[in-house]
Amino acid sequence: MGWFSKDIQTMDDLFVHTLRDIYYAENQILKALPSMVDKATDPQLREGFATHLQETKGHVARLEEVFRMHGVEVSGVDCPAIDGILKEADEITGEIADKQVLDAALIAAAQAVEHYEMTRYGTLVAWAKQLGRADCAAVLQKNLDEENAADKKLTAVADAGVNLRAAS
Amino acid sequence: MGWFSKDIQTMDDLFVHTLRDIYYAENQILKALPSMVDKATDPQLREGFATHLQETKGHVARLEEVFRMHGVEVSGVDCPAIDGILKEADEITGEIADKQVLDAALIAAAQAVEHYEMTRYGTLVAWAKQLGRADCAAVLQKNLDEENAADKKLTAVADAGVNLRAAS
Repeated sequence: MGWFSKDIQTMDDLFVHTLRDIYYAENQILKALPSMVDKATDPQLREGFATHLQETKGHVARLEEVFRMHGVEVSGVDCPAIDGILKEADEITGEIADKQVLDAALIAAAQAVEHYEMTRYGTLVAWAKQLGRADCAAVLQKNLDEENAADKKLTAVADAGVNLRAAS
Repeated sequence: MGWFSKDIQTMDDLFVHTLRDIYYAENQILKALPSMVDKATDPQLREGFATHLQETKGHVARLEEVFRMHGVEVSGVDCPAIDGILKEADEITGEIADKQVLDAALIAAAQAVEHYEMTRYGTLVAWAKQLGRADCAAVLQKNLDEENAADKKLTAVADAGVNLRAAS
């Protein structure tokens, strides 16, 4: 971790550390999404990834707003969790030749990313409120809502046919 | 990956690969949980982790049942995602001195683990149904239900006071 965890003494430190964790994660996701758009075949899935790329830029901007609101430097810390999730996504999707099986694997990989973001934003919203920063919580809630919606959209794309076609 | 991903040609291959991914993950979680029980201070949280340790043993057994039902060898594949999530959990919780802040960090770390499991089991249940293996889906659904319940219990423990005490 770029910021030594022994520096985490208070809930405020833990909140800021976790903000930096998800800030790093969002930036890594931003780098990974264009390759997911390229790999996807199903038009709805491609469009979903492209839309989420734009949303992710917005999430980064909102996180920068929260850093400023909270009066701390905008910066990331290494996040082994997202590195592992993205490494696994890259490995599994890198070698599947069948386009329909690949689409199914891409959806699963993207949902693992969404679930990581959902848990971190859920935690950050709760901590912000408890720290008396309802203003920060409201901004973070917007990112959480969009991650939840992105996850549901991926399930809908899978249910609409990607998985069924791949299994047939 | 222990199983070369270029061997993934069909949805059935992808299903089995992902079963092996979560089988490895559950076994790693089984190794990590005793240290989380030790680190936790809040009695409800300790008890929650101890209960989940028992549940996790049941999840491993159910996965072994699904391998057998599906007629494939019981084995795991490396899962960089869970390795990253657990590494991050270990780093963040290893150096926090304040017991209440540590409890809050432990809850967040455990919820990241739960969310990874929820997304994998959600995917596996959907794929099992699409592959015509409603019998496997039903067993996997039991694990999914318990992961969902464990996540909700962690939120309840946080809301009941861990985060509030830590923030005060």
